[in-house]
Amino acid sequence: MDSMTLIAIVSILAAGLTISLGVIGPALGEGKAVATALTSLAQQPDAAGTITRTLFVGLAIIESLAIYCFVVAMILIFANPFWNHVIAQAAGK
Amino acid sequence: MDSMTLIAIVSILAAGLTISLGVIGPALGEGKAVATALTSLAQQPDAAGTITRTLFVGLAIIESLAIYCFVVAMILIFANPFWNHVIAQAAGK
Amino acid sequence: MDSMTLIAIVSILAAGLTISLGVIGPALGEGKAVATALTSLAQQPDAAGTITRTLFVGLAIIESLAIYCFVVAMILIFANPFWNHVIAQAAGK
Amino acid sequence: MDSMTLIAIVSILAAGLTISLGVIGPALGEGKAVATALTSLAQQPDAAGTITRTLFVGLAIIESLAIYCFVVAMILIFANPFWNHVIAQAAGK
Amino acid sequence: MDSMTLIAIVSILAAGLTISLGVIGPALGEGKAVATALTSLAQQPDAAGTITRTLFVGLAIIESLAIYCFVVAMILIFANPFWNHVIAQAAGK
Amino acid sequence: MDSMTLIAIVSILAAGLTISLGVIGPALGEGKAVATALTSLAQQPDAAGTITRTLFVGLAIIESLAIYCFVVAMILIFANPFWNHVIAQAAGK
Amino acid sequence: MDSMTLIAIVSILAAGLTISLGVIGPALGEGKAVATALTSLAQQPDAAGTITRTLFVGLAIIESLAIYCFVVAMILIFANPFWNHVIAQAAGK
Amino acid sequence: MDSMTLIAIVSILAAGLTISLGVIGPALGEGKAVATALTSLAQQPDAAGTITRTLFVGLAIIESLAIYCFVVAMILIFANPFWNHVIAQAAGK
Amino acid sequence: MDSMTLIAIVSILAAGLTISLGVIGPALGEGKAVATALTSLAQQPDAAGTITRTLFVGLAIIESLAIYCFVVAMILIFANPFWNHVIAQAAGK
Amino acid sequence: MDSMTLIAIVSILAAGLTISLGVIGPALGEGKAVATALTSLAQQPDAAGTITRTLFVGLAIIESLAIYCFVVAMILIFANPFWNHVIAQAAGK
Amino acid sequence: MDSMTLIAIVSILAAGLTISLGVIGPALGEGKAVATALTSLAQQPDAAGTITRTLFVGLAIIESLAIYCFVVAMILIFANPFWNHVIAQAAGK
Amino acid sequence: MDSMTLIAIVSILAAGLTISLGVIGPALGEGKAVATALTSLAQQPDAAGTITRTLFVGLAIIESLAIYCFVVAMILIFANPFWNHVIAQAAGK
Amino acid sequence: MDSMTLIAIVSILAAGLTISLGVIGPALGEGKAVATALTSLAQQPDAAGTITRTLFVGLAIIESLAIYCFVVAMILIFANPFWNHVIAQAAGK
Amino acid sequence: MDSMTLIAIVSILAAGLTISLGVIGPALGEGKAVATALTSLAQQPDAAGTITRTLFVGLAIIESLAIYCFVVAMILIFANPFWNHVIAQAAGK
Repeated sequence: MDSMTLIAIVSILAAGLTISLGVIGPALGEGKAVATALTSLAQQPDAAGTITRTLFVGLAIIESLAIYCFVVAMILIFANPFWNHVIAQAAGK
Repeated sequence: MDSMTLIAIVSILAAGLTISLGVIGPALGEGKAVATALTSLAQQPDAAGTITRTLFVGLAIIESLAIYCFVVAMILIFANPFWNHVIAQAAGK
Repeated sequence: MDSMTLIAIVSILAAGLTISLGVIGPALGEGKAVATALTSLAQQPDAAGTITRTLFVGLAIIESLAIYCFVVAMILIFANPFWNHVIAQAAGK
Repeated sequence: MDSMTLIAIVSILAAGLTISLGVIGPALGEGKAVATALTSLAQQPDAAGTITRTLFVGLAIIESLAIYCFVVAMILIFANPFWNHVIAQAAGK
Repeated sequence: MDSMTLIAIVSILAAGLTISLGVIGPALGEGKAVATALTSLAQQPDAAGTITRTLFVGLAIIESLAIYCFVVAMILIFANPFWNHVIAQAAGK
Repeated sequence: MDSMTLIAIVSILAAGLTISLGVIGPALGEGKAVATALTSLAQQPDAAGTITRTLFVGLAIIESLAIYCFVVAMILIFANPFWNHVIAQAAGK
Repeated sequence: MDSMTLIAIVSILAAGLTISLGVIGPALGEGKAVATALTSLAQQPDAAGTITRTLFVGLAIIESLAIYCFVVAMILIFANPFWNHVIAQAAGK
Repeated sequence: MDSMTLIAIVSILAAGLTISLGVIGPALGEGKAVATALTSLAQQPDAAGTITRTLFVGLAIIESLAIYCFVVAMILIFANPFWNHVIAQAAGK
Repeated sequence: MDSMTLIAIVSILAAGLTISLGVIGPALGEGKAVATALTSLAQQPDAAGTITRTLFVGLAIIESLAIYCFVVAMILIFANPFWNHVIAQAAGK
Repeated sequence: MDSMTLIAIVSILAAGLTISLGVIGPALGEGKAVATALTSLAQQPDAAGTITRTLFVGLAIIESLAIYCFVVAMILIFANPFWNHVIAQAAGK
Repeated sequence: MDSMTLIAIVSILAAGLTISLGVIGPALGEGKAVATALTSLAQQPDAAGTITRTLFVGLAIIESLAIYCFVVAMILIFANPFWNHVIAQAAGK
Repeated sequence: MDSMTLIAIVSILAAGLTISLGVIGPALGEGKAVATALTSLAQQPDAAGTITRTLFVGLAIIESLAIYCFVVAMILIFANPFWNHVIAQAAGK
Repeated sequence: MDSMTLIAIVSILAAGLTISLGVIGPALGEGKAVATALTSLAQQPDAAGTITRTLFVGLAIIESLAIYCFVVAMILIFANPFWNHVIAQAAGK
Repeated sequence: MDSMTLIAIVSILAAGLTISLGVIGPALGEGKAVATALTSLAQQPDAAGTITRTLFVGLAIIESLAIYCFVVAMILIFANPFWNHVIAQAAGK
């Protein structure tokens, strides 16, 4: 196995694992947040404005965690500096 | 094993694992959100509008996490840059 | 082991794992959603319409997660681009 | 080990794992749904019709998840395209 | 190791794992369902008919999941198409 | 290692694992069912007949799951078709 | 390693694992059943007869699951057909 | 490694694992049973006789599960038929 | 590696694992029992005699499980029949 | 495999695992915090100011944990001192 | 690797694992016992004498489990009969 | 593989694992602390000063645990004494 | 690899694992004990003396478990009899 | 691989694992303690002095557990006796 193949393999595997493991936590956290928002809305419909606003800010912050993972996965697939280095090296050889 | 086969194997495995591990979290999160929505609807039928609207926005945000995984799986199967590179290299050889 | 065999093996294994791991989350989520729907129906029979409608929309969204996995499994068995490439290559050899 | 044996082995293993892992989630989900249906029936015997109907629709949707796994397992045992390809190839040799 | 031995070994192992892993979920689900049925009977003895009927339909549906596994295990032991193919091949050699 | 030894080894291991993993679920499920039956009996001694009857039917259904595993384990030890085939083959050699 | 040694090793290991894994479930199930029986006795001392009788029948059924494992472990140590076959074969050699 | 050493090693390991894994379940089950007995005694001191009697019968039944494991561990160390066979064979050589 | 070393290694490892895994269950069980005893004493100080007596009998029975493990660990270190056999054999050589 | 390839592979894998494992904890922690904030807002709408302020400070502190992981992942991909050393060494060779 | 080194390695590893795994159970059990003692003291300050006495006896019994592990770890480090045998053998060589 | 590469690889992997595993505990702990602070603020708005002060001291102490991990990860990447030693050795060679 | 290196490696690894695994249990146990102490103090401020005293004795006993692990880790690093033996042997060679 | 490299690798890995695994327990324990402190402060603001004092003593004791791990990690990186021995040996060679 040459370097290029090995880096390609590891990048594919790492990208897949990064995004699939990385959404487990945010998905559970967001599910909990949405669920409590609905309970709170049912208990106190008058505070709907504050609750919805706080919920969306909270979801955005949790979503940002999943987006870190998505960014890393995309970097590993489309902007991988190690892959670029090896390709450049192979081309310049 | 040549490079092409190895990259194909790893792409198949990574695509399968990405989507199958990646839906566990969203599925549990959405199940929790839907379940609480139904409890809230039963408790406060008058707030049905707000509850349903908040639920669907929440579900869309959680679904987006699973869609990140689906996108990565599809990229790995149908638009894999590493595979394309190897195919191009093999064709141009 | 030649390329074709290896890709076949990995496709079979990945398809099986994708669908079997991929239904665990949706099944638990749907079970929770259905269970809460029934509790809510018992608590508030008058809101049966809204509850049932919200339940079915929710189930459809959760089911969509399992269908992503089923689609990927089917693609890996019947429309696998890596397998097609290897078959084409073997036929054209 | 020749290709045919390897594909046979992996198909057997994958079929067994697919169905055995795949029923864990649906079984727990259905158990939860049935259990809540019984609690609801005891609480509100008058709503028996709606509860039973919603339960059976819900069970059917959860059962569909297990059936996806069963279908994949059956495909892997009796309609495996990779196995058919190898058999055809061996016969035509 | 020849093909026949390998297929026999994997079939034995897969059959054992299929049925033993496959009954965990249904057993827990049925235990939960039966347990709730008993609680409901104690709470509302008058609804015994509906509760018992719903319980048995539910148990049958959950049992069907274990039976899928049993069927696959039996197929792997007594009607294994891969084994039959190898035996036929060995006999016709 | 010859075929006979390998099949013997795998059969022993599979039989042991099948029955030991296979009783975990039923044992927990039955424990839950019996426990709830006792709670229900204490709450509603008048419904003892219905409760006990439903309990025993439920236990029988859960026990059937463990018996599937026991049957498979016994088949693997005493009526293993793969072993019989190998013995017959060795005798006829 | 000759066949006899291998079968002996696997039998020892399988027997130990069978009984040790196999008592986990029944022990937890019986502990739960006994615990609930005691709670029920404290709540409803008058129903002591029915409770105790139901408890002992339930314990016997759960114990039967552990006894399946014990039987398999004993068969593997003292009446192992594979071992007997190998011994007979070695003696007749 | 000769047969004798291998059987000795596996027997030691299996004996240790059998008893150490085998007491986890009974210990938790007995702890639960004793704990509930104490709660029940505090709730209903008058029923001390029945409670204590039921507790001790229950503990004996759960203890029997651990004793199965202890018996198997002792058999593996001091009355191991496979070891005896090998020793006898070595002595008669 | 000669037989003596191997048996020594496995005995050390097995002894350590036996006692360390074997105290997890009893420790949790006893902690639960002691904890409930203290709750019960606070609820019903008058029944202190019966509670303390039942507690100590229960603790003794749970402790016996850990002592089985300790006995096996001590046997493996100081009275290991397999080690004695090998030493005797080496001495008599 | 030369040093450069190995370091590239390990960096890719470590970066992916770092961020994907590292967001699980913060996501769950933030989900819990947001959920409780919503419950508190529904209970005490008058304290919305204090609650929201405390929530955002808390989220920032928990987010900082995920950012440590993101920083380490970015360092491993884009500012890896070990990679730089090897590249420099290769260039200067 | 000679015998002495191997036995030393395994003794070090086993001693470390024995004590580190062995304190998990007792620590959780004692934490639970102390916690309940404090709750009970707050509920019933008058029974402080009995509660504290029972607590300390209970802690001593649970501590004894950790001490079994500590004793085994110390024996493995400082009074290891297998190590002594090998040293004696090496000295007498 | 030369020493330098090996130490680089292990440092990268250890740094990534240290920080990603090391934030799981603190994140959950801080999430719990922030969540309870919000509940307490809603229950007792008058004690906001004391609660917020105690919360921030607590968060700082828990954050310190994650910072230990971050410090170790940074030391492993940027101030690794083993790496420095090897570099110095290689330079002085 | 010579004996000295191997013993050094295993000692380092064992020391690290011993203390890191060994503090998990005590930390959770102490957290639980401290938490309950604070609840009890809030419920019954008058019993502060008894509660604090019992808490500190309890913490000392649980801390002793972690100290066993710390002692073993320190012995393995700084007073390792196996290492001393090997060093002495190497010096006297 | 020479001794020095091996000891360096294992020290790096052990240091990272020690601190990252070692903070999980204390972080959860401290989170629980801080959380309960805040609940108690909200319930009983008058006892703030005693509660805060007990909390900080408790946190210090739990923190000490993490510091044991940090000390061991630092010793392994900066004052490792095995590394010092090997360096001294290499220098004196």
